[in-house]
Amino acid sequence: MTEEIKKEKYVEVDKNLAIETSFPETDVRFHSVRHAPFELYNFYDPAGQPIFRRLPEDVAAATSDGVAKLCRESAGGRVRFSTDSQYILIKAVMPVVGRNSHMTLAMSAGFDLYEDYPSGESKYIRVFMPPYNMDGGYEQIIRFGSRKMRYFTINFPIHSVVSELYVGLQEDAALGEGRKYADDKPIVIYGSSIVHGTAATRPGLVYTNILSRYLDMNVVNLGFSGKALAEPAIIDWIAAQDMRLFVLDYDHNAPTPEYLGETHLPAYKKIREAHPDMPIIMVTRPNVATNGSRAMERKDVVIDTYRAARDAGDRHVYYVDGESFFLGKFENECTMDGVHPNDLGFTLMAEGLECEIRRALRDCEA
Amino acid sequence: MTEEIKKEKYVEVDKNLAIETSFPETDVRFHSVRHAPFELYNFYDPAGQPIFRRLPEDVAAATSDGVAKLCRESAGGRVRFSTDSQYILIKAVMPVVGRNSHMTLAMSAGFDLYEDYPSGESKYIRVFMPPYNMDGGYEQIIRFGSRKMRYFTINFPIHSVVSELYVGLQEDAALGEGRKYADDKPIVIYGSSIVHGTAATRPGLVYTNILSRYLDMNVVNLGFSGKALAEPAIIDWIAAQDMRLFVLDYDHNAPTPEYLGETHLPAYKKIREAHPDMPIIMVTRPNVATNGSRAMERKDVVIDTYRAARDAGDRHVYYVDGESFFLGKFENECTMDGVHPNDLGFTLMAEGLECEIRRALRDCEA
Repeated sequence: MTEEIKKEKYVEVDKNLAIETSFPETDVRFHSVRHAPFELYNFYDPAGQPIFRRLPEDVAAATSDGVAKLCRESAGGRVRFSTDSQYILIKAVMPVVGRNSHMTLAMSAGFDLYEDYPSGESKYIRVFMPPYNMDGGYEQIIRFGSRKMRYFTINFPIHSVVSELYVGLQEDAALGEGRKYADDKPIVIYGSSIVHGTAATRPGLVYTNILSRYLDMNVVNLGFSGKALAEPAIIDWIAAQDMRLFVLDYDHNAPTPEYLGETHLPAYKKIREAHPDMPIIMVTRPNVATNGSRAMERKDVVIDTYRAARDAGDRHVYYVDGESFFLGKFENECTMDGVHPNDLGFTLMAEGLECEIRRALRDCEA
Repeated sequence: MTEEIKKEKYVEVDKNLAIETSFPETDVRFHSVRHAPFELYNFYDPAGQPIFRRLPEDVAAATSDGVAKLCRESAGGRVRFSTDSQYILIKAVMPVVGRNSHMTLAMSAGFDLYEDYPSGESKYIRVFMPPYNMDGGYEQIIRFGSRKMRYFTINFPIHSVVSELYVGLQEDAALGEGRKYADDKPIVIYGSSIVHGTAATRPGLVYTNILSRYLDMNVVNLGFSGKALAEPAIIDWIAAQDMRLFVLDYDHNAPTPEYLGETHLPAYKKIREAHPDMPIIMVTRPNVATNGSRAMERKDVVIDTYRAARDAGDRHVYYVDGESFFLGKFENECTMDGVHPNDLGFTLMAEGLECEIRRALRDCEA
């Protein structure tokens, strides 16, 4: 009744899961993405900070200890450039690597490569896959098999801290700017772990990054897993940003519906005061079927804010019922753990929000 | 320019990701799922084998070293039962735990709980989440907050080896049989890592398990990551099984289109010989946009088999072009790494195959 079972590594069996960690290429020249022509999105002062962070240190510290930690995770960050190199190598330096049973390392610590086309389309190439036991960073290569000018986006890791990213290209390769987004101002999304991106399988599938591709716009990820409490410090900072549209999506992290009631309307008012005509979209939690605790009371709070805004004459405020994203056949399958949307859930959220954002932007032009 | 960065654990920040590892409940009685009234699906001789395996040892050994290893992974396994306990605890003994950058531990080593309703619906509750550094097994609890008779399915881990699964219930709880599937014979699916389930975020979202819920049928997972080569030993064994419908989905693992050409028609013929009137569905790879290498030549092989079967008078053979699953807006977003479908990709595959399987079963009755 006993069978000897060797603890072999899974990758020894399926070569599709092997990860290359050394490279025969000898003509590599590394470039730090902190400098032109690389263009970075979603980061605060990317050339001047020791890590790729999403908030200034003082704002983060004034918000909470949790946000001070989480804003150092590079969730939603992107770098764009063009090259005719026949490969792209990356060398990442990562002082903190997120590891958790809920996450793939591909998502928490991987960099995800897309090719950008003149049409505005951005197509998935592959993830720069971190070796499972890497510590402090890693190198990875993606080859194209031919040499021609291409435009790229690399999506940064979701739950790790990145201090340096070097892109290695053939030493004689051209290196130029990336594609510009169709709009020069970003969409800013503030919220919980759902905005942050927990439980996507790779960085490109976090909903802010999906939306960025759908809309051909920079979408700024201000998701703070478990710590989005709409504190005055962070709401003031967001209000001071230049943006095209703002999405308020933090109902999950409010410890109670009462807390949400005390903070939601003030947060809206501060953003509106600074941006009188900008569309503001309010969203409620998507995962009501699997995580319904007091969901309806929370929804009531968001609806109250929306109605108060409309009653006060606001013509650029929108309400999206998050429950609607998952309604239908897939209702129970859109999360990883009852709370965090998986790739299916994030895709459905992005589709729903894309529709509402386009409507809001059209209304705004009208 | 330096910032001190403490390597805190991510779960210290977001309590939604904390994993409970000890339990105050003192009225727990453990039951081995090897014995009635528990009913196990997808396993070979579940009461007699030291681990939950998908193939007899001699068949696996005659197939290949790779399949001999992989058939010990509990991919696609399920146990069904009913109880009025107000919680379910599990204690799993796992001699091998799959760990890999592509995978969540929730998928490779987690057990995924669904509640089964009289209507045939099966709704997601939560995953029994393995602690990140667990070795050899773990305990986990899911509470319901009330006591009433409920029917459950637990999905087994996808890339780990399980030797024991104990279900802990209140000592005075009722324990009975699970819901029966609407059909007493299974659907059997043979194939690569895509059938096996690599890159779903949790066991319930592997496409064979999604299909099982959609169809209210037992779907047997004979996916062998990287090692599905249609060797005579395994095809002979499959041909000897009692089943309602068979799906042949291994084009990915054939090392070349030529190899596929040499093995595909013979595999079909063996299965057909043993089951003259049973529907057989042939499927090609779904991820053509991201992994197109010689995809069209492989597709030609499968089409040739299909046509040869039709020409020989077979009225119960079906061809599904895998490329069709991902066509449309999400084409580039359905895989984790260009190869393995993610939760979005698996859902689309299950939807497409559900449709074809229903058609085939209807034709078969007609």
